[in-house]
Amino acid sequence: MTSLQIDANGRLRHLITLEGLGRERICALLDRAVELRDAFAMDAQGPQLLAGRTVVNLFFETSTRTRSSFELAARRLGATVLNFDIASSSTSKGESLEDTLATLEAMQADAFIVRHRENGMPERLAGFAKRAAILNAGDGNHAHPTQGLLDALTIRDRHADFGALTVTICGDIRHSRVARSDLHMLRALGAAEIRLCGPAALLPDAGAFSDCRILEDFDEAVAGSDVLIMLRLQRERMSEALIGDEADYFARFGLTAQRLARARNSALVMHPGPMNRGVEIASEVADGPQSMVLAQVANGVPVRMAALTTLLGVD
Amino acid sequence: MTSLQIDANGRLRHLITLEGLGRERICALLDRAVELRDAFAMDAQGPQLLAGRTVVNLFFETSTRTRSSFELAARRLGATVLNFDIASSSTSKGESLEDTLATLEAMQADAFIVRHRENGMPERLAGFAKRAAILNAGDGNHAHPTQGLLDALTIRDRHADFGALTVTICGDIRHSRVARSDLHMLRALGAAEIRLCGPAALLPDAGAFSDCRILEDFDEAVAGSDVLIMLRLQRERMSEALIGDEADYFARFGLTAQRLARARNSALVMHPGPMNRGVEIASEVADGPQSMVLAQVANGVPVRMAALTTLLGVD
Amino acid sequence: MTSLQIDANGRLRHLITLEGLGRERICALLDRAVELRDAFAMDAQGPQLLAGRTVVNLFFETSTRTRSSFELAARRLGATVLNFDIASSSTSKGESLEDTLATLEAMQADAFIVRHRENGMPERLAGFAKRAAILNAGDGNHAHPTQGLLDALTIRDRHADFGALTVTICGDIRHSRVARSDLHMLRALGAAEIRLCGPAALLPDAGAFSDCRILEDFDEAVAGSDVLIMLRLQRERMSEALIGDEADYFARFGLTAQRLARARNSALVMHPGPMNRGVEIASEVADGPQSMVLAQVANGVPVRMAALTTLLGVD
Repeated sequence: MTSLQIDANGRLRHLITLEGLGRERICALLDRAVELRDAFAMDAQGPQLLAGRTVVNLFFETSTRTRSSFELAARRLGATVLNFDIASSSTSKGESLEDTLATLEAMQADAFIVRHRENGMPERLAGFAKRAAILNAGDGNHAHPTQGLLDALTIRDRHADFGALTVTICGDIRHSRVARSDLHMLRALGAAEIRLCGPAALLPDAGAFSDCRILEDFDEAVAGSDVLIMLRLQRERMSEALIGDEADYFARFGLTAQRLARARNSALVMHPGPMNRGVEIASEVADGPQSMVLAQVANGVPVRMAALTTLLGVD
Repeated sequence: MTSLQIDANGRLRHLITLEGLGRERICALLDRAVELRDAFAMDAQGPQLLAGRTVVNLFFETSTRTRSSFELAARRLGATVLNFDIASSSTSKGESLEDTLATLEAMQADAFIVRHRENGMPERLAGFAKRAAILNAGDGNHAHPTQGLLDALTIRDRHADFGALTVTICGDIRHSRVARSDLHMLRALGAAEIRLCGPAALLPDAGAFSDCRILEDFDEAVAGSDVLIMLRLQRERMSEALIGDEADYFARFGLTAQRLARARNSALVMHPGPMNRGVEIASEVADGPQSMVLAQVANGVPVRMAALTTLLGVD
Repeated sequence: MTSLQIDANGRLRHLITLEGLGRERICALLDRAVELRDAFAMDAQGPQLLAGRTVVNLFFETSTRTRSSFELAARRLGATVLNFDIASSSTSKGESLEDTLATLEAMQADAFIVRHRENGMPERLAGFAKRAAILNAGDGNHAHPTQGLLDALTIRDRHADFGALTVTICGDIRHSRVARSDLHMLRALGAAEIRLCGPAALLPDAGAFSDCRILEDFDEAVAGSDVLIMLRLQRERMSEALIGDEADYFARFGLTAQRLARARNSALVMHPGPMNRGVEIASEVADGPQSMVLAQVANGVPVRMAALTTLLGVD
């Protein structure tokens, strides 16, 4: 939770985390995303709601899908997007990030999309911002709120009532910002049961997860699940975590068609991508009829449009 | 030839190669390019035929002119262009190219401009594409179809009848995708005679070139030519091919004013660029009145506009 | 001074340097900048004066603020902006800069924004250009004319009469293109007194600066100044120039609140950025009420809009 993202008038000013954002605000963002999705489905040249606005991509970590998704969201709405190349930027001349932000704000930048390997960097920038909105595109293992929102939309498109759902998140929960943002979303929308599953070394300390069922046996976790969110395994954590090699991991935690059969009928299979096929997910499942992977990607664009227009006050 | 680029309704779906495309389709593309060239000459803000469409540049090899030309073609028609930085992309996280393509298609990418050092990569991507069009911007030594088309347009602007033309292609034929695409274009448009010239080590094996006259003597090749297409010499092939040093090469195959005098009156001099002045072409010729080099570059933009609008069904 | 930037009809054709440009032309550019600033303040979607035009960023040195400022200026006016990545360009295939320019002009590029570490490179390109305008975005220690213009506008916004002003430029004058362009601007606009201050090793040889007061004592220079322009210290010059370490430099030439108190009442504090806080300027001053740093950045965009529209004949 951060006190920065809601302003004195109760308006959403930044999007740093879904924690504490509340069901109503999350649903308003999803409803807005659906409106925009419909508008662009009817006419590829949708409403130019951000014409004259400037959006800056500040990616301190590389990213394909998140950066492209934000860029397309902003540009299809008519915004000018500046891709700020961090390596060749003034920060390499020793300028503080605060001064870089102030400089770009002075050029009338309206929003900054920030990805950073350090937890809390987007929140720090939100503290510096005079008028621009900060959108967290992933910080450390802290939060990835637009991923949480697009996952929410993907589930809601198929299940109106979260209160009836058992959702399992499987993989490297400990290091995953996706898991955290999904968890906050699932709590806010009232999922019936949340299960976290993975090798002991990649499971979180109980603490903030006391309302979840924590399981090391994936077959047990899958059984009866309505939604399975598979996380990307960072291969470099393989030995570090004493979790064996890829084949071991796949044997214990890989989602195969056989395992998927233990879940509820037509359970949804989700993955934030990029997928390691044959590590956390079998290709037959990734490409199968229950896979929501491309639906998630497709929903990312209108969800980010919704976040941008809401933060920039274009309702 | 590929079976992928024409769909079941006989429409052009991808542009992978000019081989087998046929005179009619090639002429339709050239006619469309002329229309667009005229429209933009009358008003720099030409028709926004691609407004709301998304074009992705997927360049696995660096390129200045081809990438810029495609980007300007797309953006002047109102498309959103995404430059996909391969080095910092998910493919570096081990994602397959197929998954990357599917991801960008899910974000509603309409066309992919692909350059790759491997022959056949654009065709492979065309095999994966669900709805997007693939445009080959050069693959290995296989094909560079928009270069073939812009060369065709540049010649056609000055000679209505290809059946009267003797065309010489000189240089590193063996490794040149430009030579191959020009050859397919010249055959389709019915050039009277096609001559291929270069050092033995850089000439192709006869095979697919049996309808061409293959010559090692450049003076003989130039004599009576209406069009001279000079290829860029890859300097790194100098020793490998035992073709001597640059001065030797220039002496044997460099196009000088003196040599050019052996060609037909006002023969056209073409080069795909970037030029090695003093290696394959003398500056007096490159900058002389018969040089079509800048006309080729200028034609590149409307030719690529024609390809994009045709493939995206905006006729 | 260059003879290239004014054409035969007395129109501004390129913007290479402010030297010899004259008061009238400079004031016309500033007036135009104010008009554009007002238009965009009233409506973020300002006049699309450059719709259909193409602007190419040719940055051979990295830059954040200048490149972003030019890019935003051009794009907010509706231009298509091509960022030309020098490292991956044809110049790396041995193409001459002249051929690269000619190629991009053949694609209908209308203006080139050029930054280069060598003095005179933008002027050389202006010599090559057939129809496009060249805008110098900083060359070596020669000139940075749009910086001079935005500094002029920032001062003029607060002081109508330059003839009443004492202006001090402090820092590494010897290596500074900003100092040179500011000097030409201040002379053209008739500043009463120009003072140059810095360590002996970083002061210029008298020569071209004979109308300035050259001072090594910063307290003396500050006393009675209406405007203080602090330059960025290139840290790598620290030892080279035998000017001591950062603490020494700050003690002698750092602008502190205490020193600022010696200047005229409400003297303006300027810096081209990025700032080395605690080296050439104290944070209390950089962030204080007299700091014009962000006003300078804000003025950069309309000044560059004014330059682009003037050079492209959109008056």
